[in-house]
Amino acid sequence: MAKARLISVIGAGSEAAGADEAACETARQVGRLLAEKGWGVVCGGLKGIMRAVCQGASEAGGLTVGIIPSTDAADANPYCKVVVPTGMGQARNLLVVLSGKGAIAITGKGGTLSEIGHALKEGKPVVSLMSWDFPGVTRAADAEDAVEKILAAVEK
Amino acid sequence: MAKARLISVIGAGSEAAGADEAACETARQVGRLLAEKGWGVVCGGLKGIMRAVCQGASEAGGLTVGIIPSTDAADANPYCKVVVPTGMGQARNLLVVLSGKGAIAITGKGGTLSEIGHALKEGKPVVSLMSWDFPGVTRAADAEDAVEKILAAVEK
Amino acid sequence: MAKARLISVIGAGSEAAGADEAACETARQVGRLLAEKGWGVVCGGLKGIMRAVCQGASEAGGLTVGIIPSTDAADANPYCKVVVPTGMGQARNLLVVLSGKGAIAITGKGGTLSEIGHALKEGKPVVSLMSWDFPGVTRAADAEDAVEKILAAVEK
Amino acid sequence: MAKARLISVIGAGSEAAGADEAACETARQVGRLLAEKGWGVVCGGLKGIMRAVCQGASEAGGLTVGIIPSTDAADANPYCKVVVPTGMGQARNLLVVLSGKGAIAITGKGGTLSEIGHALKEGKPVVSLMSWDFPGVTRAADAEDAVEKILAAVEK
Repeated sequence: MAKARLISVIGAGSEAAGADEAACETARQVGRLLAEKGWGVVCGGLKGIMRAVCQGASEAGGLTVGIIPSTDAADANPYCKVVVPTGMGQARNLLVVLSGKGAIAITGKGGTLSEIGHALKEGKPVVSLMSWDFPGVTRAADAEDAVEKILAAVEK
Repeated sequence: MAKARLISVIGAGSEAAGADEAACETARQVGRLLAEKGWGVVCGGLKGIMRAVCQGASEAGGLTVGIIPSTDAADANPYCKVVVPTGMGQARNLLVVLSGKGAIAITGKGGTLSEIGHALKEGKPVVSLMSWDFPGVTRAADAEDAVEKILAAVEK
Repeated sequence: MAKARLISVIGAGSEAAGADEAACETARQVGRLLAEKGWGVVCGGLKGIMRAVCQGASEAGGLTVGIIPSTDAADANPYCKVVVPTGMGQARNLLVVLSGKGAIAITGKGGTLSEIGHALKEGKPVVSLMSWDFPGVTRAADAEDAVEKILAAVEK
Repeated sequence: MAKARLISVIGAGSEAAGADEAACETARQVGRLLAEKGWGVVCGGLKGIMRAVCQGASEAGGLTVGIIPSTDAADANPYCKVVVPTGMGQARNLLVVLSGKGAIAITGKGGTLSEIGHALKEGKPVVSLMSWDFPGVTRAADAEDAVEKILAAVEK
């Protein structure tokens, strides 16, 4: 049986942290484009960017996995097909990164930064869309560019 | 979108810990029966009972989720559709329990015992098939009985 | 520099789970006796047995370590000298067990059971005082007996 | 009983990641200065900056806590007084941050970045010495400056 191929999508969970309407629309496009290319999405399962990318992916028939901080699956956004409640709070960030072949970061603050750090440590490629930018992270111009760049990196 | 409904299946990862041929055949039946009733399986993603229940579920078209101790998705058994690498070793046991509505234990030693303890603490129903038996755990006679009892408990 | 030598003490966090006055008095004695023999205590850092054993140990000059489920060190009982906030909820149970050379269980329900399971899996000795009893766990009659038995097991 | 007051010290675990002789000498000074002011050190418990800061702190009589990725306390550096084995790999990074009132970063790559991200998310002050630098992180010129700045921030 073929395993689901997943990309981690990380980013702001609230408008205050950067998940405004434009960023969420971008995240929806990222989810849709990944699904159209046969890739599922794994994320932190909550709101903001996480909800938007799950919506985009599930609307295009893609698999969505939400690894959430609480113990209660009902806390996941309604577009997560598979929910992994962890009860581990922010320690679940590492698992979001480990579950994907690479990560796309869309906006985000400290939580997203911890995920980018984990991805770099684990040798996973990271593409940044309106998010943190350092050596080792690849910047993208828009949703299409981000998906193209992450798939080029993970399919190498 | 409907969330996947999952039952945790826990038990021995090796023949030495109890996953002999008969126990694995029982686990395969449990996976198949759950799939036939529209339920997916979440487990620790490795061998023995974990592999057998994933095989049974996937052969019947069911969803299989493996939450594994290492950081490398390749360590999961080939019947896991969705793999969550945790890098957290035995701390992942809690997540296996939290991801299901209830748990079926099939054989197993200390690791399985830690999962039953977590399930009792979290108020999740546990059905035991040739596994640990205490107050709070419901014994089952065979695969069919175990699936019937766990679904009766979680659908209440 | 000599590392602190620690015994894990696990058990009920509330009177409802078994931490009545007698059990807490026993836990205080366990803490005191361990301290008198040069051993520190590591526990889950909350109330009930955890608080009592820390009180007994610290009153006798012993080191006390509390590994707590929340992110806020202020949630630890006042007798913890070193507090490790984890934000990981019950997943912290594994760490309590791993931080000691062996474990003494005093009363307790599902949470304690998960810790005993982890200890057996990791090959750590477990002594039970009014707590769970299975193959692999050594029963003790009172605080003195429990301390004697755990130290005999870990100093082998 | 007064709880131990701890500062998290994070940074490279190897010379390749930045823990060269000069950086380690700086870390030793940080440990010593913190101890002289009555603060203990919590770190990831391994080599490089972690070992150096523990050495400096313990030589000045300070408390040292190492929260290590493996399950085996023997993997901690010899200057850790209290060892918390987690078996959780990089997920332990969050715990290192949560156990201190604030963090000093000295060199470091992805692992350190994940810790800075967690610290920002949790609202803990971060001082950077030859390490990552972003909005929200305070730069320091040397060991003395770093200790002064972190204590000013946490004692507010």
